[in-house]
Amino acid sequence: MRNILVLHGPNLNLLGTREPEVYGHHTLDDIHQVLATLAESQGATIQHFQSNHEGALIDAIHEARAWADGILMNPGALTHTSYALRDAIAGVALPTVEVHLSNIQARESFRHHSVIAPVCLGQIGGFGWRSYVLGLQALLDHLAQTK
Amino acid sequence: MRNILVLHGPNLNLLGTREPEVYGHHTLDDIHQVLATLAESQGATIQHFQSNHEGALIDAIHEARAWADGILMNPGALTHTSYALRDAIAGVALPTVEVHLSNIQARESFRHHSVIAPVCLGQIGGFGWRSYVLGLQALLDHLAQTK
Amino acid sequence: MRNILVLHGPNLNLLGTREPEVYGHHTLDDIHQVLATLAESQGATIQHFQSNHEGALIDAIHEARAWADGILMNPGALTHTSYALRDAIAGVALPTVEVHLSNIQARESFRHHSVIAPVCLGQIGGFGWRSYVLGLQALLDHLAQTK
Amino acid sequence: MRNILVLHGPNLNLLGTREPEVYGHHTLDDIHQVLATLAESQGATIQHFQSNHEGALIDAIHEARAWADGILMNPGALTHTSYALRDAIAGVALPTVEVHLSNIQARESFRHHSVIAPVCLGQIGGFGWRSYVLGLQALLDHLAQTK
Amino acid sequence: MRNILVLHGPNLNLLGTREPEVYGHHTLDDIHQVLATLAESQGATIQHFQSNHEGALIDAIHEARAWADGILMNPGALTHTSYALRDAIAGVALPTVEVHLSNIQARESFRHHSVIAPVCLGQIGGFGWRSYVLGLQALLDHLAQTK
Amino acid sequence: MRNILVLHGPNLNLLGTREPEVYGHHTLDDIHQVLATLAESQGATIQHFQSNHEGALIDAIHEARAWADGILMNPGALTHTSYALRDAIAGVALPTVEVHLSNIQARESFRHHSVIAPVCLGQIGGFGWRSYVLGLQALLDHLAQTK
Amino acid sequence: MRNILVLHGPNLNLLGTREPEVYGHHTLDDIHQVLATLAESQGATIQHFQSNHEGALIDAIHEARAWADGILMNPGALTHTSYALRDAIAGVALPTVEVHLSNIQARESFRHHSVIAPVCLGQIGGFGWRSYVLGLQALLDHLAQTK
Amino acid sequence: MRNILVLHGPNLNLLGTREPEVYGHHTLDDIHQVLATLAESQGATIQHFQSNHEGALIDAIHEARAWADGILMNPGALTHTSYALRDAIAGVALPTVEVHLSNIQARESFRHHSVIAPVCLGQIGGFGWRSYVLGLQALLDHLAQTK
Amino acid sequence: MRNILVLHGPNLNLLGTREPEVYGHHTLDDIHQVLATLAESQGATIQHFQSNHEGALIDAIHEARAWADGILMNPGALTHTSYALRDAIAGVALPTVEVHLSNIQARESFRHHSVIAPVCLGQIGGFGWRSYVLGLQALLDHLAQTK
Amino acid sequence: MRNILVLHGPNLNLLGTREPEVYGHHTLDDIHQVLATLAESQGATIQHFQSNHEGALIDAIHEARAWADGILMNPGALTHTSYALRDAIAGVALPTVEVHLSNIQARESFRHHSVIAPVCLGQIGGFGWRSYVLGLQALLDHLAQTK
Amino acid sequence: MRNILVLHGPNLNLLGTREPEVYGHHTLDDIHQVLATLAESQGATIQHFQSNHEGALIDAIHEARAWADGILMNPGALTHTSYALRDAIAGVALPTVEVHLSNIQARESFRHHSVIAPVCLGQIGGFGWRSYVLGLQALLDHLAQTK
Amino acid sequence: MRNILVLHGPNLNLLGTREPEVYGHHTLDDIHQVLATLAESQGATIQHFQSNHEGALIDAIHEARAWADGILMNPGALTHTSYALRDAIAGVALPTVEVHLSNIQARESFRHHSVIAPVCLGQIGGFGWRSYVLGLQALLDHLAQTK
Repeated sequence: MRNILVLHGPNLNLLGTREPEVYGHHTLDDIHQVLATLAESQGATIQHFQSNHEGALIDAIHEARAWADGILMNPGALTHTSYALRDAIAGVALPTVEVHLSNIQARESFRHHSVIAPVCLGQIGGFGWRSYVLGLQALLDHLAQTK
Repeated sequence: MRNILVLHGPNLNLLGTREPEVYGHHTLDDIHQVLATLAESQGATIQHFQSNHEGALIDAIHEARAWADGILMNPGALTHTSYALRDAIAGVALPTVEVHLSNIQARESFRHHSVIAPVCLGQIGGFGWRSYVLGLQALLDHLAQTK
Repeated sequence: MRNILVLHGPNLNLLGTREPEVYGHHTLDDIHQVLATLAESQGATIQHFQSNHEGALIDAIHEARAWADGILMNPGALTHTSYALRDAIAGVALPTVEVHLSNIQARESFRHHSVIAPVCLGQIGGFGWRSYVLGLQALLDHLAQTK
Repeated sequence: MRNILVLHGPNLNLLGTREPEVYGHHTLDDIHQVLATLAESQGATIQHFQSNHEGALIDAIHEARAWADGILMNPGALTHTSYALRDAIAGVALPTVEVHLSNIQARESFRHHSVIAPVCLGQIGGFGWRSYVLGLQALLDHLAQTK
Repeated sequence: MRNILVLHGPNLNLLGTREPEVYGHHTLDDIHQVLATLAESQGATIQHFQSNHEGALIDAIHEARAWADGILMNPGALTHTSYALRDAIAGVALPTVEVHLSNIQARESFRHHSVIAPVCLGQIGGFGWRSYVLGLQALLDHLAQTK
Repeated sequence: MRNILVLHGPNLNLLGTREPEVYGHHTLDDIHQVLATLAESQGATIQHFQSNHEGALIDAIHEARAWADGILMNPGALTHTSYALRDAIAGVALPTVEVHLSNIQARESFRHHSVIAPVCLGQIGGFGWRSYVLGLQALLDHLAQTK
Repeated sequence: MRNILVLHGPNLNLLGTREPEVYGHHTLDDIHQVLATLAESQGATIQHFQSNHEGALIDAIHEARAWADGILMNPGALTHTSYALRDAIAGVALPTVEVHLSNIQARESFRHHSVIAPVCLGQIGGFGWRSYVLGLQALLDHLAQTK
Repeated sequence: MRNILVLHGPNLNLLGTREPEVYGHHTLDDIHQVLATLAESQGATIQHFQSNHEGALIDAIHEARAWADGILMNPGALTHTSYALRDAIAGVALPTVEVHLSNIQARESFRHHSVIAPVCLGQIGGFGWRSYVLGLQALLDHLAQTK
Repeated sequence: MRNILVLHGPNLNLLGTREPEVYGHHTLDDIHQVLATLAESQGATIQHFQSNHEGALIDAIHEARAWADGILMNPGALTHTSYALRDAIAGVALPTVEVHLSNIQARESFRHHSVIAPVCLGQIGGFGWRSYVLGLQALLDHLAQTK
Repeated sequence: MRNILVLHGPNLNLLGTREPEVYGHHTLDDIHQVLATLAESQGATIQHFQSNHEGALIDAIHEARAWADGILMNPGALTHTSYALRDAIAGVALPTVEVHLSNIQARESFRHHSVIAPVCLGQIGGFGWRSYVLGLQALLDHLAQTK
Repeated sequence: MRNILVLHGPNLNLLGTREPEVYGHHTLDDIHQVLATLAESQGATIQHFQSNHEGALIDAIHEARAWADGILMNPGALTHTSYALRDAIAGVALPTVEVHLSNIQARESFRHHSVIAPVCLGQIGGFGWRSYVLGLQALLDHLAQTK
Repeated sequence: MRNILVLHGPNLNLLGTREPEVYGHHTLDDIHQVLATLAESQGATIQHFQSNHEGALIDAIHEARAWADGILMNPGALTHTSYALRDAIAGVALPTVEVHLSNIQARESFRHHSVIAPVCLGQIGGFGWRSYVLGLQALLDHLAQTK
């Protein structure tokens, strides 16, 4: 059985209410329900965690070494600056998929670059809450293939 | 019924034989078979086209206006330079998903930037041939949702 | 009655003791007293919060949605790097005024740029503790005008 | 008694009629009246001058040495390029406050940088005509404090 | 008697297990033991603190004003971005030595630049856990010399 | 009698249907008719060619050496990247006028720069289909003057 | 009847005598005569003004609001630096065509960029005095079309 | 017996007639004769191909996998932009020598950089048609040495 | 007999009173007296002009064509931005020497670059009022040598 | 027994007399005495060499292959530019420690970057003559550990 | 009879022993023997000189004016920084060919640029010791052609 | 009596024979004679030294501390790169004037910047051998004034 950490960075707790024209109307709870169903259907579980604190996200990644097989992460605005988050992922050496709700390449130029991406398996962005679903599928497929 | 154009840019005809440690061992034919099955299961069809000629890719995009509902595209190395390809997508106004086999953000710096991305729905990269599968699913979901 | 969140970023708790030739001799308490008096005289209240934790500042901004009409913020050194703070302000959509004690344009070049500014009403900097007073006035005026 | 030069750079004579969605509906005359009232209430006077000629603005700054105690200036588009204006302020050594009607940090990137700012006390921008009022208050406070 | 704060930034709690080919096989506990012995032999004590939270590191620096004579710090990935950490050190005005386990100049280009360095006494990097030992020696020598 | 090659780059075949709010409602055929009439009125002829293939455009330029006296060209998105097109024009040494339908300086920054311009007589852009008419007039005038 | 302001920036009074190998042998008077004839033939008039003073050019643009329907302008070297001129055009909101005698893209790199262009209808450059004639035609056509 | 593909990029068909002061008076045919003689003398053959179409050049490189032992290529202006050509060479993994007629480092700055060079054995440029001869010799020597 | 225009840019009228630690205690009148004596001793005359208006400086340069043999100019802060001044000098084709009171290379980085220098004979800076004397000598020597 | 080459770059012969507020009052001889004592106490010897000639420094590094086990080097101003020195160290493959007297990250920006660092074990800077002592200790420890 | 100076820059004396996986196993003596044989076979002689001192290389270039007809040079790491070497070649005006053992375009980015190249006939790099042989041939051909 | 070191950098020994259209026809000996006469007439002496070796120039500057009152230096191409030369001048703290024969601001862009200038009194360039004469005069004046 695979265990997956679903991690959300700063401001994603606002999901569904914050700038819905950019980020959509689904809340984190809505997304977690879809992800749990998908995971279960493939013999996996998810644990989710959201924080506006970079340090808490890093702590969660460190703790995941003890129980998780992979990480599905939307780093929010930390995507563009947090080398500490990047080092955390490299440090625990868990396969990680980076997802984004919006198409970050079509927004302000500071959102075009990800400092996290080079230590992830891959990136998925632009499909709203479905980015998470696609990302979880990609991660489970990767784990199945490397078992 | 949805009709999807699957478009492959330069050098992707070499797939399966070219630098397999980077791009994997599946050929385009292998991928098309998987995509056709997935499409069919959701009441859709795919037409695929690969070319090493930027102009031929643009022609194919133009022609797709007559029959296609969306485009799934791996622009290959044109990702980083072809404003003409970008204008073609913007010109036909068909929903387009950009996919990459490798994690382009973890490779040479010239591969980090996509000039195509801002006119696409979203991007998926780093999952080998599965990037195409995820991309097709994302595109079909988008079409279902905007019907 | 207007309720204002007065928010101070990292190191501002040192105010009055840290590098007084740059930041002046007033403490945060001194400033809060002046601001409270000014607010009261115009039928408003202030709540203040200082933290060295970016995440705690973001949490406070989120919570302000429930009770505040506007934010007066000195982001300290986060001014120059925190896209997460910027997204928090954009997410709660409360009118925000950015203030600085020192004239940041006359200091080291990394202090010249604010990533927060584009989501604020305006900026005031260079007038020591009076920057806060002017900023509160600007915010109250704005609220009065848009009532 | 304090005497203040209120200086307006190029195109500010159009105020109230030029791009009102950006700059507001108040004319320079409206603003001067408010400023005069504020100054008078604090035992000060203002003299105002607008010009589209960089040279004329510099001349006015030079002449201010003979009668003024401080300068309140909106350099308009010269903000971003005029080292000559900057040298004029540094040359006369009068305390100067830079104000802007609009939030220049939220507009075109060429408007983000001020070559004038390093020789001013501070900057205030984004509050429409109220930027002037806040700026005058800041300047009078500064003069009171350094008497 | 000299009291020294030994401060470790994000991910250094993983030391000894994280990417040992880059960072070595010693844990923080191993290092603290060596440092304590060295300190004691020169009539000094150390207190150590590690956190993945930038804010907690800043808090610790602030508190050190009450009891410490100097700081030995490995800021981890915050080295390259945290102006808030820099301001904290400048604010408490305690002599600080910056150390790194690896030779950061020989790694990815984003690791070449330190925003912390300009407010430190000096930097030592590239010698694994010995960088800490050399750094503590340098700090104690400095304190002896400026007594 | 003067013979002019009218050359259109990628995506211009979509003219009249593609993003009409940017490029207008006239088709290439409409434009060719106007240009032919203008040419004829001044004792000249035009031959036109559109291609989405950079190579085909270069071939056409090479062949023009045999029959044409000048080139009127809208390189489309190749304007910004095609040094090969530039070398073709320099190679055949035919006087060339570069035209654009839209005001490329007021659009995305990647459209501001033309690598073709330095080997042309001049540029005309921003006047919709009339840019072609003005460009043909400029070219015919140039040829008349250098006869 | 259409009234057009023809505006010439710094050093254009030298036309015909200054660096004729770059700028040609026609004087401003020669050009004005041609433009007047063209205007008259299409039921329009021109008023022309040249100044080496940026401020005087801005004043002329402001005054044109009272009488002119459009502006034909060669900003000379101010093309590359004068945001004040740009703001003047944006402020009066008169349709403006930017012209250049020489092919500025083929000269020194500092001449390649125009800060004026984004607020104009379009640009014409490289055709000597004929650039003015083409520009006037473009402006009159635009006015006719938007009548 | 060694078989070599001699590949020429855009505009090289003009050789001998295009800008002879830069590129010399020899035609491609002249060069092919010299190369064929040299090849034959060392027990090798050449096949040559020129195209103005990037796609056709890539096709030729792909086909060369079936028959060639190495590639001698002058990419022309594609040298500076074609990542697709670069990927083609890397994809077929044939030893490739890049040659240029002119000294590209002494010309316009955009010609100083080659995106092709990192996947080639080496570069030779500046010696006119002799660059090809030297390049063929270098390639044959390399093949002899790695037999 | 040689006639020399001595030209001073913005803020130089403040000389002797403005920031004397940077620019020295001599006034423009003091300098003119020294220059007149030097000129006279070598059979030359000087005419001097100072303005804070770029346009007035350009007018003076244009008028100098009628009577002057050379120009000695301190462009002040226009040194770094005024392409119009540069074009004026190039336009009148009078030999010009650029002088600066201070060592501009040892001051703020924006003062390191001169846009005027490329159209001058040479530059002299850093010697206070003596820069003018040395510059006049250089100019007279040049004129003597090219008579 | 370990033999160490202590190498000093340009201007370090002035040590103790040159800008003592930056570099301290100790001479090279003082430093050598301290280093020799330290080396001897750990069963090692030092040989020292200072030169203002980059070539002589490279020669000394080459010769060290015959007798030395490691290099302690302060490259002086060559730190920032000498790729030849870097290649010499890489060429002889002797473990090398780079030291600096001053905190180069807190000085002019051109001193922030070291082209030597990537081929060294590590760097130590900012502790005056003690940087050498710490560096020698680091080098001897490294040699002991890799014996 | 042609006389050729063969010049080697810093660290090339290590050839055959230094980083053989990058630079190969041939020594300078091996290379000189091959070059002498080639030269002799074409009625030419070579003189060779290696130095780690930029100044000695420049001296050798100056002296070559008295006896040499051309220069074959591998500037080593000075390739990327030595404008003095460049000026020496330009100063003696002897035809010069620049060679490199390794493919410098495929190594660290600081090795991609040559400041020497613009004053040479051409460049050859990437073929190990054969780069010298090809370079000598290129130089002798050039001399034969320009006799 | 004042003693002046006249220092010439690389390639200046070629003066009079090297690229005379750029550097003029006077030799170093010619210049020394003029300088000696000028010095003598003002009660001063000169000693001159030219070297192509940066190290030898630095040595000469160091030695000058024992006998010289000032330095007149043309650093040649080292102007643009030699921080070691800069540190030598700062280290000996002798007043130094930088001179150039040609107008370096009107040549290749790499010649526009001087790393030496910030530690000199001032710069003089563009007047051929007269730059030296003017520079010596400036230096002697400075010494007279600071006696």
